[in-house]
Amino acid sequence: MATITGVSIDDVRFPTSLSADGSDAMNKDGDYSAVYVTLTTDAVGPDGTPLAGHGLTFTIGRGNDIVAVAARQQAETLVGLDVDRAVGDLGAVYRGLTSDSQIRWLGPEKGVVQLSLAAVMNAVWDLAGRHAGKPVWRLLADMTPEQLVDVADLRYLSDALTREEALELLRAQEPGKAGRIAELEAEGYPCYTTSAGWLGYSDEKLRRLCQEAVDEGYGHIKLKVGADLEHDRLRCQIARDVIGPDRKLMIDANQVWDVDQAIEWVNALADFDLLWIEEPTSPDDVLGHATIRKAVAPIGVATGEHGHNRVMFKQLLQAGAIDYCQIDTGRLGSLNEIVAVLLMAAKFGVPVCPHAGGVGLCEMVQHVSMLDFVAVSGSREGRVAEFVDHLHEHFTDPCVVDSAAYVAPTRPGYSTEMHAASVADYRWPQGTYWTERHADAVAAARG
Amino acid sequence: MATITGVSIDDVRFPTSLSADGSDAMNKDGDYSAVYVTLTTDAVGPDGTPLAGHGLTFTIGRGNDIVAVAARQQAETLVGLDVDRAVGDLGAVYRGLTSDSQIRWLGPEKGVVQLSLAAVMNAVWDLAGRHAGKPVWRLLADMTPEQLVDVADLRYLSDALTREEALELLRAQEPGKAGRIAELEAEGYPCYTTSAGWLGYSDEKLRRLCQEAVDEGYGHIKLKVGADLEHDRLRCQIARDVIGPDRKLMIDANQVWDVDQAIEWVNALADFDLLWIEEPTSPDDVLGHATIRKAVAPIGVATGEHGHNRVMFKQLLQAGAIDYCQIDTGRLGSLNEIVAVLLMAAKFGVPVCPHAGGVGLCEMVQHVSMLDFVAVSGSREGRVAEFVDHLHEHFTDPCVVDSAAYVAPTRPGYSTEMHAASVADYRWPQGTYWTERHADAVAAARG
Repeated sequence: MATITGVSIDDVRFPTSLSADGSDAMNKDGDYSAVYVTLTTDAVGPDGTPLAGHGLTFTIGRGNDIVAVAARQQAETLVGLDVDRAVGDLGAVYRGLTSDSQIRWLGPEKGVVQLSLAAVMNAVWDLAGRHAGKPVWRLLADMTPEQLVDVADLRYLSDALTREEALELLRAQEPGKAGRIAELEAEGYPCYTTSAGWLGYSDEKLRRLCQEAVDEGYGHIKLKVGADLEHDRLRCQIARDVIGPDRKLMIDANQVWDVDQAIEWVNALADFDLLWIEEPTSPDDVLGHATIRKAVAPIGVATGEHGHNRVMFKQLLQAGAIDYCQIDTGRLGSLNEIVAVLLMAAKFGVPVCPHAGGVGLCEMVQHVSMLDFVAVSGSREGRVAEFVDHLHEHFTDPCVVDSAAYVAPTRPGYSTEMHAASVADYRWPQGTYWTERHADAVAAARG
Repeated sequence: MATITGVSIDDVRFPTSLSADGSDAMNKDGDYSAVYVTLTTDAVGPDGTPLAGHGLTFTIGRGNDIVAVAARQQAETLVGLDVDRAVGDLGAVYRGLTSDSQIRWLGPEKGVVQLSLAAVMNAVWDLAGRHAGKPVWRLLADMTPEQLVDVADLRYLSDALTREEALELLRAQEPGKAGRIAELEAEGYPCYTTSAGWLGYSDEKLRRLCQEAVDEGYGHIKLKVGADLEHDRLRCQIARDVIGPDRKLMIDANQVWDVDQAIEWVNALADFDLLWIEEPTSPDDVLGHATIRKAVAPIGVATGEHGHNRVMFKQLLQAGAIDYCQIDTGRLGSLNEIVAVLLMAAKFGVPVCPHAGGVGLCEMVQHVSMLDFVAVSGSREGRVAEFVDHLHEHFTDPCVVDSAAYVAPTRPGYSTEMHAASVADYRWPQGTYWTERHADAVAAARG
């Protein structure tokens, strides 16, 4: 019998604040970070190498160590687990981790212990994909409707989606699955770019990056807004000038407004023909988003990257609060919660456009969107996954974007393994980057 | 100039799981715990002793150390702060702690970093009370409407309560304040007891404790329910037999049901004339609570002990989801958020009946309810604060209940200081209880 034999947890931080990558109206100086979980086993994978699983969650710097402490406590409960049984019943592994009522009290199902749960379960999913010799999107897409519903956490959701409804929905997509897999492998999954629009970038850099995005074939561009209305109008004008009238322009306020302020500000940008306003207010404010949505239509409302669990998404859908559902693979309790959200979104007819960027989020969300297309919603229509072109070089199976579409991953797992050298270099605070090169980098940035 | 000179953080755990104290349908074996924060200063208080502040948050065991790590990071940012300036602008101290965008990402405003914020800000409020030589309820009640609104965090609330509305509401209560303070000092603030109704207690123990509660003058009794419907009917019958038809009976399901299941279960207990059902489903499910409330009326719906921030309470009020608003002093971001919730509840006409029990929650909520009566809602009508008779012996200024009412605290501070000996004894894992007596206690509990 092969078992999970050990756990390692790394606090990895990248100095993104030095270049204002990732800067927005709420978060001016994030250092993109990951709590990186490795589960080792004494099993051998289909390719003959030792089987391991790698997972992570994303934070923006300070406090990454707090999440690491939580991840260690959760991950250590997996040591000794039979590998075949674990990957054969991923719903049970998830329920085991979430049924500790003492840890649950710290959320429940939110904040640090939910971020750490995501990191740990993402590693379990990576392990499952490698064990099966399949990329995770394909592992999920190949499941029967019953198997897929069994991994989903449907607790608290039955007033919006029953198990039977979920099964019917999946069964209805069965006939077209093979065709959609072929389409996906040929064409990939459409994405949009945020790389152009960070708030800390100069107007010249914004113009140049928008032009590059157009040249690379992107049909959607997203800008950060919310610091200064007049400057937002200027930035939208620059973007619209470059991308022309046919490409889509989205804006993202990162939660800086109260409800009435959001309505006023967004409507003051309405002449730039915006597809969506993202995170206009507190991510907890379901009713506030519903109010904003009514008042800014036809501009759509998008939120979800801080949606901390499936119950929040249930309400966003029930309240008619969103036009675009933006799940996050580092914040929800891994695919067990995400599949539940995909199912609800499909029932309510709301497109899922995952949040990405950060560290490793692009690597993961491509699997989610592909699963959604192949097995759940059955559609790519009106859907785009986020893509931000940062930090992919630290992954052993980095996402590949071609002609503004994620290319379907073919390697086994969840694309979540980092290069050992990257982890060693950026481990905080003792990695070689932090001890040997950071001081110079700061000096150069202040230049 | 006197400053905050140091911070100590203690992980304190009590072995309550051995006696099933605190057991409910979700939490069967909690070890009541506290992250205990002490802020030292080089100032001298009005009584001539060194000035310090003590605060805490409550958890139920494992993971208390995770909250401690977060509390240390937040509290250490206060070292060096001018004491007079800090206590003179408690809103600014709170905003300082909550404006770290990297830490904010870990919530935002929820979970571990919100629990730790509560512990730290509770210590600051204790310090402020001691500095002024007043119990915290009185420190707050003596503030002008402008001062009180200035400590409240109104961000994201303006669609429910504007600053001007908050001021008007407080100004309207000014004339009666002195009279209510006198009433409070004479009569105390009404409370109810949960000590009788833990789910792990035998039926005989339930009957005996209900009788004791009646003998002590309680007009309200609360039972835990949700494990077994037939047994819940029996337990309600026992309680109703003992307390008679006129006293109030409440039930608490601790989040175990889905929405439809909650409706069915509660209605199956309706013939016991219940005042409220508490936490029928996920604490995040505002819309679910609203649905349940409509379907179980005239039984009221109570929730809030896991309401993680003011935005959740705003929505519970806007959606008409609750009849009773149960704030928690260890979960909300201390009095800065609580005052905002009290103001909204007063505007919406919903009584605030704080959650208590745990470790130190009773000590704190008495201050909250007294503030609410004196300065915000102006009423005790239909309001009861929770009281659970456990663990008060560990506090230097324990709450006192007389004739089913909290006696107004008179000593300066927030009643949050623990005996140094208790901290030393129950500090986890190295305190003398855990190293020397726990093994025997486990053996004794197992009989």
